[in-house]
Amino acid sequence: MKAEIIAVGTELLLGQIVNTNAQYLSQGLAELGIDVYFQTVVGDNSHRLRHAIETARGRADLLIFTGGLGPTQDDLTKDVLAADLGLGLYIHGPSMEKIAHVFSSRGLHMVESNKKQALMIEGSDPLDNTAGLAVGNALKVAETAYVLLPGPPREMKPMFDGPVKEWLRKLLGDEKPLYSRLLKFAGIGESTLEDKLLDLIEAQTDPTIAPYAKEGEVAIRVSTKAASLTEANVRIDATVSAIQARVGDHLYAEENIPLEEAVVRLLRAGQQKLASAESCSGGLFSELITNVPGSSGEYIGGVVTYTNQMKHVMLGIPMSQLEGEDAPGAISESTAALMAERIREMTNSDYGVSLTGVAGPAESEGKPVGLVYFAIAQRGKATIVHTTHLSGNRSMIRLRAVKAVLYRLWQAIREQEHLQQS
Amino acid sequence: MKAEIIAVGTELLLGQIVNTNAQYLSQGLAELGIDVYFQTVVGDNSHRLRHAIETARGRADLLIFTGGLGPTQDDLTKDVLAADLGLGLYIHGPSMEKIAHVFSSRGLHMVESNKKQALMIEGSDPLDNTAGLAVGNALKVAETAYVLLPGPPREMKPMFDGPVKEWLRKLLGDEKPLYSRLLKFAGIGESTLEDKLLDLIEAQTDPTIAPYAKEGEVAIRVSTKAASLTEANVRIDATVSAIQARVGDHLYAEENIPLEEAVVRLLRAGQQKLASAESCSGGLFSELITNVPGSSGEYIGGVVTYTNQMKHVMLGIPMSQLEGEDAPGAISESTAALMAERIREMTNSDYGVSLTGVAGPAESEGKPVGLVYFAIAQRGKATIVHTTHLSGNRSMIRLRAVKAVLYRLWQAIREQEHLQQS
Repeated sequence: MKAEIIAVGTELLLGQIVNTNAQYLSQGLAELGIDVYFQTVVGDNSHRLRHAIETARGRADLLIFTGGLGPTQDDLTKDVLAADLGLGLYIHGPSMEKIAHVFSSRGLHMVESNKKQALMIEGSDPLDNTAGLAVGNALKVAETAYVLLPGPPREMKPMFDGPVKEWLRKLLGDEKPLYSRLLKFAGIGESTLEDKLLDLIEAQTDPTIAPYAKEGEVAIRVSTKAASLTEANVRIDATVSAIQARVGDHLYAEENIPLEEAVVRLLRAGQQKLASAESCSGGLFSELITNVPGSSGEYIGGVVTYTNQMKHVMLGIPMSQLEGEDAPGAISESTAALMAERIREMTNSDYGVSLTGVAGPAESEGKPVGLVYFAIAQRGKATIVHTTHLSGNRSMIRLRAVKAVLYRLWQAIREQEHLQQS
Repeated sequence: MKAEIIAVGTELLLGQIVNTNAQYLSQGLAELGIDVYFQTVVGDNSHRLRHAIETARGRADLLIFTGGLGPTQDDLTKDVLAADLGLGLYIHGPSMEKIAHVFSSRGLHMVESNKKQALMIEGSDPLDNTAGLAVGNALKVAETAYVLLPGPPREMKPMFDGPVKEWLRKLLGDEKPLYSRLLKFAGIGESTLEDKLLDLIEAQTDPTIAPYAKEGEVAIRVSTKAASLTEANVRIDATVSAIQARVGDHLYAEENIPLEEAVVRLLRAGQQKLASAESCSGGLFSELITNVPGSSGEYIGGVVTYTNQMKHVMLGIPMSQLEGEDAPGAISESTAALMAERIREMTNSDYGVSLTGVAGPAESEGKPVGLVYFAIAQRGKATIVHTTHLSGNRSMIRLRAVKAVLYRLWQAIREQEHLQQS
């Protein structure tokens, strides 16, 4: 079954609100195994809404509408669809009673236009609105099914999850639902990953392997239609193993969590502690780690030593290291190593990480924008120092630098744990 | 001119991401006086993309595409549009050089597919991508104009705001251009602000006053069509004065800068220094301040004392203040004050700020989620302490807490400077 989601509302076309309903419905339909091929947004205009309906009917067999079920003059989804199908409209008794009751119980006067919210297209099934007044409609005419939902997400969501899913399952008969698993990668670019998996992506038809682009992240979705989760998992596991064999060093999670959460989980499993000393990243490392709920068990804290003075006062790094003609300077491998080691020692942590570099827009200490040194100090082991040359604007350089540290930290913790297990 | 926005990407149809690009573009086009009649989302499928193009061409004269300009096999917007228009594709020299340079400077091997990002449709104008690799295209064929933008918002936004707006202004010809000024507010909610300005918003037809929705920010856009910037400024200035008279205490900028940038500018003007000590906000204050380019002149640095141990070790706060039956505890007014004072003294700054509270999801020290204390310590003046009760999830509470501190800090610096001037 092919679906099209049609959002009706001029406020969407003016950019006053974001069409989050389309996302919610798309996810829900995918779970039911229904493919969404198009999403359309159209204004509160009967001529253009009719055009959208006709276009959609030519390319989909399930049309899901959101919006335009309210009491105002601009609300015209039911009228336009009924006219288009040549069907009549009538006032739905139970819905009308509910509306009248809500008004009288609040001591409000019901105006004529409120009756519109109880309208039903002839031959449609009513969809109960547990969070609002407008009744939804669902009907099938010839080969096409139509579902009309209210626009406000708090009304739309329970209606979709309740009566609509039930209605759609009946419509689908016994089609199998789609199961999928998200694989998250770090330390590898989207195109390199796809290159390494190209033959798998092309050969594989079940489960399917699809790249999943998300801002600053690299992920892959493995999906299959199956009668049960157990049946799906058997097939998905086999595909994941094949992927693991090629790029396992970069696969940090088999669910939708950020890299920092994978790091916190590894630390938690090994009962280890982490602290940080940041310069160019200005607290972003801290911010990402502490955004993981419960990270206070693993992350002790950090310093943002944005000036040489701070590096000296807070971390005890000698000024002779930072300033003077022959000094390595704040932006150097040795300062990165010292920062990581000092914060680890001061906090008695298992890991201390540091970042120092040039986030831009101007160069610093005569060093170019994008040059970042970072270090990982480890209890009882040698400090690891990396040099990277990152591109992008200021915030991108900062984010990329922090993600690079997180990736290397994740590797270091994993290695350590493998050692302990063997 | 009638526009249609076409987002290309299967991840949108699967509900993996929300189409925020459509909102951003709709707002931007409205500002240029261009009507958006439809928004469409289509998957990475050449047949269906072609169908979307043909449908759109029948009902709009400007088609704006987002997505599908990347290096992977799924990226096919340029190929499909070129084929549809019967035009060829060629590799754009300058874009190819840039891509090759980025790869070589990172020491990475460029794979063949990366060349796709330098593709241009014959006869189109290149749109420079300042935040990524894929070059945009803009062209007019017969009566229809086409603009191809990358999907990631951080690449799409600067491309639209820069070269695309310029290109569209030329396309629109000699219509009087629209000038507008964005007013940014802090410490006031969107509905309260609108309430206080309601009569102005309703009465005003030129310049128009329009609330400007943006996640977590409160802003207003004052716009007028004029023959010159000077002519526009005279009218806009008068409107801004009327707004200033009512809500001047909250109006922190007359341009699109974040609150933290307004704070850094005030500090710079007064040659003052700032340091921070954060607990519940986990480095977010630091991160926002240091994301302002050049902030190292004003921001000395900070600590993220995520545990009591860190508050003691890094800031010298006595353990008797933090732990024990009769201790005020880490989450208290007096600890907030001590944190702000200690970091200010240690760094010899003019201002020291602190945050301590419960970002959730679980309560802490028996205190409820959303309770946040923050303090502003000032050289030679009494420390200001605030208590707030914030709602939202973990990241929202953190962001709201940091914005509250920034607002009170902005007020405190402004007051100080008024005192010095008088």
